[in-house]
Amino acid sequence: MSDGPDDGRRRRERESLADALALSRSSLGVTTPNPPVGAVVLDPAGAVAGRGATEAPGGRHAEVVALDAAGDRARGGTLLVTLEPCDHQGRTGPCSARALAAGVARVVYAVRDPNPLAAGGAETLRRAGVDVAQADDDEVAAAEQGPLRAWLHRQRSGRPYVTWKYAATLDGRVAAADGSSRWITGPESRHHVHGRRQEIDVVVVGSGTRAADDPSLTARSDDGAPTDRQPLRAVMGLTPVPPDAAVRGSDGRFRHLATRDPAEALAMLGDVQHVLVEGGPRLAGAFLAAGLVDEVEAYLAPIVLGDGRSAVQGAGVGTLTDAHGFEVRENATLGRDVYLRMTRRTA
Amino acid sequence: MSDGPDDGRRRRERESLADALALSRSSLGVTTPNPPVGAVVLDPAGAVAGRGATEAPGGRHAEVVALDAAGDRARGGTLLVTLEPCDHQGRTGPCSARALAAGVARVVYAVRDPNPLAAGGAETLRRAGVDVAQADDDEVAAAEQGPLRAWLHRQRSGRPYVTWKYAATLDGRVAAADGSSRWITGPESRHHVHGRRQEIDVVVVGSGTRAADDPSLTARSDDGAPTDRQPLRAVMGLTPVPPDAAVRGSDGRFRHLATRDPAEALAMLGDVQHVLVEGGPRLAGAFLAAGLVDEVEAYLAPIVLGDGRSAVQGAGVGTLTDAHGFEVRENATLGRDVYLRMTRRTA
Ligand SMILES: NC(=O)c1ccc[n+]([C@@H]2O[C@H](COP(=O)([O-])OP(=O)(O)OC[C@H]3O[C@@H](n4cnc5c(N)ncnc54)[C@H](OP(=O)(O)O)[C@@H]3O)[C@@H](O)[C@H]2O)c1
Ligand SMILES: NC(=O)c1ccc[n+]([C@@H]2O[C@H](COP(=O)([O-])OP(=O)(O)OC[C@H]3O[C@@H](n4cnc5c(N)ncnc54)[C@H](OP(=O)(O)O)[C@@H]3O)[C@@H](O)[C@H]2O)c1
Repeated sequence: MSDGPDDGRRRRERESLADALALSRSSLGVTTPNPPVGAVVLDPAGAVAGRGATEAPGGRHAEVVALDAAGDRARGGTLLVTLEPCDHQGRTGPCSARALAAGVARVVYAVRDPNPLAAGGAETLRRAGVDVAQADDDEVAAAEQGPLRAWLHRQRSGRPYVTWKYAATLDGRVAAADGSSRWITGPESRHHVHGRRQEIDVVVVGSGTRAADDPSLTARSDDGAPTDRQPLRAVMGLTPVPPDAAVRGSDGRFRHLATRDPAEALAMLGDVQHVLVEGGPRLAGAFLAAGLVDEVEAYLAPIVLGDGRSAVQGAGVGTLTDAHGFEVRENATLGRDVYLRMTRRTA
Repeated sequence: MSDGPDDGRRRRERESLADALALSRSSLGVTTPNPPVGAVVLDPAGAVAGRGATEAPGGRHAEVVALDAAGDRARGGTLLVTLEPCDHQGRTGPCSARALAAGVARVVYAVRDPNPLAAGGAETLRRAGVDVAQADDDEVAAAEQGPLRAWLHRQRSGRPYVTWKYAATLDGRVAAADGSSRWITGPESRHHVHGRRQEIDVVVVGSGTRAADDPSLTARSDDGAPTDRQPLRAVMGLTPVPPDAAVRGSDGRFRHLATRDPAEALAMLGDVQHVLVEGGPRLAGAFLAAGLVDEVEAYLAPIVLGDGRSAVQGAGVGTLTDAHGFEVRENATLGRDVYLRMTRRTA
């Protein structure tokens, strides 16, 4: 953008949209089937008047939360929101109408709503005389590749976004020769995993992991206590899940996916956005072979075993040029470990 | 350090010592059995008057190169050097005497010489009235863990420093189901590998890799031409190396290490500083099991195979708590790949 009197305003708007994106993270895993959105309202002088993120289904959309917080200060102000405000009469009334009632003079949104039912909010606002703009390309990309990616994927493909997560040694092992596998990675990595479990809808493991580790698959805080927000827990495979399996828990949030077909398993989960496949090696291989891994999260421990199970077993690849390819999006240090987040390679 | 009139001087000295360290990298792989050292001479006003790195055996030490370049400007100036100046009458005369003859007023060195034959340079200079100081702890650590690490290791342990290098997929595979293994990593990683081959003394692979890939093990530039500086090339194992094996080359720089004992193999190599073990999986396992891997360089390609050879096979580990542990020292992106440099975990 060129230098000019509006530079200060645009800078404040960029900061506020980044803030809205950060806010929207707090609603990951909470909003399904709705999108996790963040919104910020600036008053006419450019000061932050309200902030909000989408509430659980039946609750308020992010824009409404932010406008409620802003009250009269929204009049003549600016609404920044990570997704185009909805235009449809759902349980909560269209956000476009709410923004008009609040008297905002300008709306900046990042991602255009791909849902034909909800889209049109930008147009409605514009027709009513509001100054409506889409954010810059980099801001749109940050929102699309960030908190909205799973929901957008579901809208566009009709199936949930699948992340395969694993913890392995430098030589790619997920268990030692004697089967021992706890803990390959350190406390910082485990803390990170439990944070992620709170942001997705379903955690899935295969029958083999269920039998080998009897995992609870709950999201827990560092002291071992379950956190407020819990994902669905699922075991996939034809073997019955024993009545005393830890994964069953007592909260009714357990599902047995009695199939070996990854696509069928996803369909059985209904209208969820984000599925976290936590292995083991054969289940990971099946999802990879089916082309159903959109994202990989690798927790790499700088240790070597030289024996034991590899992270993936059987992914339908015979020769090197047919390998499943990903692109590194995040590379971070977690205590002693290295954390990589990757998305499917498209080119 | 406290604020004071000497702050500017100390800052310049720190910059120059960092420069000397960077310079010393250029002599890695060139100086064996001598240490790869870097030196910078500042004139009395604090301006850089000379820079140097150790030349090949029989050539000049770093201090001499830098002092030669500085000429008369060294008089009353400061010599910064990554290793304590030597005090012994080798092929080139002691550096301590040379510094005195040049008339330097101050000497700052990073690492104290652990070699009793060469040590004492600092004391000789001090007795002659030169202001001698060891660098700050962080500067000493940077030199010890940087270009001098292999030489220091040899001095202290009597055996060369061993780096195990491998290129693997996310699931730790070094070859696909059909044996294909070229290229797992991208051109940026391969470029990096060839740079490293020029910095070490010997590249070693096992008989299995020799037979599977018939590698030349030379250091090559991106256009495939061998570079000026070439490491020794070695194949380890009892199987004879065929007369037409590419690794033999025609420059007389090939060695067959007809043993399966890693320690014996290192001894057969004589007074080398740095050995690069480039696999394959069984040879890597043997060096790990013998406790003879000091450093690991991992080139990780963000791809998944799900079948094929793992990076290490048989490292003498039965259960997770006995895994070989390392500490990540460098984590960099090389094109699509991730590069990790790790050193043996001591605590
Ligand atoms: N470090 C890590 O990240 C991590 C994570 C998980 C597990 N692990 C380790 O992995 C080991 C277990 O490995 P695993 O391979 O036996 O476990 P797995 O992949 O969890 O389970 C394999 C089972 O999954 C079921 N399954 C469902 N769909 C499948 C399909 N399309 N293809 C193949 N199997 C399908 C099958 O069970 P049915 O016969 O019932 O159909 C199969 O026997 C344990 O040692 C565990 O500790 C490590
Ligand atoms: N991606 C990478 O980084 C990378 C690097 C290298 C190789 N590779 C792949 O690895 C595969 C070859 O694997 P490999 O395991 O057969 O190769 P290897 O480890 O290179 O060779 C194994 C051979 O090394 C000899 N050896 C010497 N000392 C030994 C000891 N202490 N223990 C065991 N063996 C010892 C033995 O040969 P003798 O019978 O002659 O004694 C043994 O058969 C190929 O597919 C190659 O492409 C990949």
